[in-house]
Amino acid sequence: MRRIYLDYAATTPTDPRVVKTMKPYFSKIYGNASSLHEIGQQARRAMNQAREKIAKFINAQPEEIIFTSGGTEADNFALKGIFYSLNLPHKHIITSKIEHHAVLEPCQFLEKQGAEITYLPVDKYGLVNAIKLQQAIKDETILVSIMHANNEIGTIQPIKKISQIIQAEKERRKKNKINIPLYFHTDAVQSFGHLPVDVNQLGVDMFSASSHKLYGPKGVGMLYVKKGIKIESLIHGGEQENGKRASTENIPGIIGFVKAIELAGEEMEKEGKRLTQLRDYLIEKILNNIKNSCLNGHAKMRLPNNINVSIKGIEGEAMLIELDHFGIACSTGSACSSTALEPSRVLLAIGLGPELGHCSLRFTLGRWTKKRDLSYTIKYLILVVKRLRNISSLKV
Amino acid sequence: MRRIYLDYAATTPTDPRVVKTMKPYFSKIYGNASSLHEIGQQARRAMNQAREKIAKFINAQPEEIIFTSGGTEADNFALKGIFYSLNLPHKHIITSKIEHHAVLEPCQFLEKQGAEITYLPVDKYGLVNAIKLQQAIKDETILVSIMHANNEIGTIQPIKKISQIIQAEKERRKKNKINIPLYFHTDAVQSFGHLPVDVNQLGVDMFSASSHKLYGPKGVGMLYVKKGIKIESLIHGGEQENGKRASTENIPGIIGFVKAIELAGEEMEKEGKRLTQLRDYLIEKILNNIKNSCLNGHAKMRLPNNINVSIKGIEGEAMLIELDHFGIACSTGSACSSTALEPSRVLLAIGLGPELGHCSLRFTLGRWTKKRDLSYTIKYLILVVKRLRNISSLKV
Repeated sequence: MRRIYLDYAATTPTDPRVVKTMKPYFSKIYGNASSLHEIGQQARRAMNQAREKIAKFINAQPEEIIFTSGGTEADNFALKGIFYSLNLPHKHIITSKIEHHAVLEPCQFLEKQGAEITYLPVDKYGLVNAIKLQQAIKDETILVSIMHANNEIGTIQPIKKISQIIQAEKERRKKNKINIPLYFHTDAVQSFGHLPVDVNQLGVDMFSASSHKLYGPKGVGMLYVKKGIKIESLIHGGEQENGKRASTENIPGIIGFVKAIELAGEEMEKEGKRLTQLRDYLIEKILNNIKNSCLNGHAKMRLPNNINVSIKGIEGEAMLIELDHFGIACSTGSACSSTALEPSRVLLAIGLGPELGHCSLRFTLGRWTKKRDLSYTIKYLILVVKRLRNISSLKV
Repeated sequence: MRRIYLDYAATTPTDPRVVKTMKPYFSKIYGNASSLHEIGQQARRAMNQAREKIAKFINAQPEEIIFTSGGTEADNFALKGIFYSLNLPHKHIITSKIEHHAVLEPCQFLEKQGAEITYLPVDKYGLVNAIKLQQAIKDETILVSIMHANNEIGTIQPIKKISQIIQAEKERRKKNKINIPLYFHTDAVQSFGHLPVDVNQLGVDMFSASSHKLYGPKGVGMLYVKKGIKIESLIHGGEQENGKRASTENIPGIIGFVKAIELAGEEMEKEGKRLTQLRDYLIEKILNNIKNSCLNGHAKMRLPNNINVSIKGIEGEAMLIELDHFGIACSTGSACSSTALEPSRVLLAIGLGPELGHCSLRFTLGRWTKKRDLSYTIKYLILVVKRLRNISSLKV
């Protein structure tokens, strides 16, 4: 059967060029990077080189890159790390209602530890309102965590605008001698590899990224932490990662991640254009051919590979299963919670009722997506919708 | 140059059979195990199978296995997870002075969060005294964490005896209606793959293991958590690992880890005997040929692959560097702290003075170690010791 993978936001196949680059680091250059002997130092040099490359790519310093086991760990690390590093009677964190669970659940955990969390609403496109964010900041706010781009609806947040607000607040505190630090973290798991990430230009203090979302191996990611920021470790027990993240370094994973970043960097501009065209083609075909369908998220401020639509009256999950029978792999909501049968939090936040929230499908395109895959998809989507609507009308 | 790797306790090369087994899971069976479509479910089935295999191997249930990014994460998870899961005014944890940093540093972190920690001493062989442990238990003790085998000196702890003490205490609490749970965790990172681990026979509630110590890939490990134990996640943000550890599952890593466990299981008995012979050969050669040398740790209750010796008057690091020039890779202290110039905590705990503590070398043998490698090693070790003692006597 023909298999069409349109769930690149859930995970990507590891690019064969990446696998090839990783290979020597399993059984040949296998040392522990903390070992003093040549076999260990050989591994250390490879890791250092990888760290330098990634730093250059995001316009940071090598010592600002902390490798983790993935985006989720990086998000947990950023939030809990800042919370535990500060000895203050009251700690306030601002985030949005549409963050990934990897941000929201650590926030819920920190609430139990005494943190106060503000969950900002978003508009109908999924955009955080910078003014509302500004209003939410208090003297006790230590951290703002707003994602770069949403994993479900692809909306790209105005990170630069938010960072300017935070910068102004930092200056106000300095002027008024309020000695409480304020940091800005962004979860860039979905955008990294699709959008340019220059930490200075974005004005962020921390950002999380994951390897397996950009054709690198699973099980590796990173947290960028600006020099000078004191952060408590999430994983204690050794001097690795500049004393910030203990554990024997996953050298093959790190090497693969960095190779994936290099490839994404080389191809980003051209690939971004190609995917945007494909994306808009599929959106147009769906909206024009399926009645009572709508696009979720912003038409333009959107990841180049994300299509999220609601098709009134039909359960997303039913469509997903039917499409899967035709070999088309897509998602409803995010893969991370797709085994939970709750309506999408993100779609509720942009104002969809529970029915439309339950009627969504997400198609995410990638490096091996061809236009003919989308023609095939639209053909079978129309068929599936027709069939399910027939069943549904029989039931009514 | 001839290269002899005698630092298998720091890390192992990934067995080529393991790498081969992992390979399809990078670019062919690449789905996100949380995705509902066939590509995701294919990955999920592979992961479930892997989990079943490992459960069978340690005599546990599949849902008791939580995959992590390594042994350090598993240790952090066990300690912090139990601490945060219990809402009690006073929480007491017992551990030993010679645990790995991955246990000791989380303990130090938890002290800041209000935990009381007892660090048990050990005898001159590095053994925890079960009676002292029993005496240290209070009504408020929630967790005992004692390693299975020490990473530096290879001493194997009387885990079964300790678990009997803990079992008796559990029964006492039940009888006296003291409603505070008590759990027993063991860090089996160094022993797993060398010694049989049957969770029922050992009587542990939790144990940590790491893949890269037994010829599996780096970046993956596991925590066994007995059914019914409530444990707070360390990494929040998704329903993976039975809701206990969020993050897209590292399927290639998990597949590799389990293959490594299978291989270790098949070869354990024969390989254990072979390594024990090689170990005792090297110990004997060193003690007989180098004056003022001694074995650290227990002669018999010892990992089959561990040799730790002190050679009076010579810095371990100087020997390590000299041996490295002859292509021999070994360690002084543990690799994890080998870039720190502090004397070995473990050697101090077994009663060595700072000088002897600084004069230690650890040789750890493995799957590819041959007797001729050890003859070569002893030859050059004698040479190195002679040369360094000459320099040292010139200085005096």
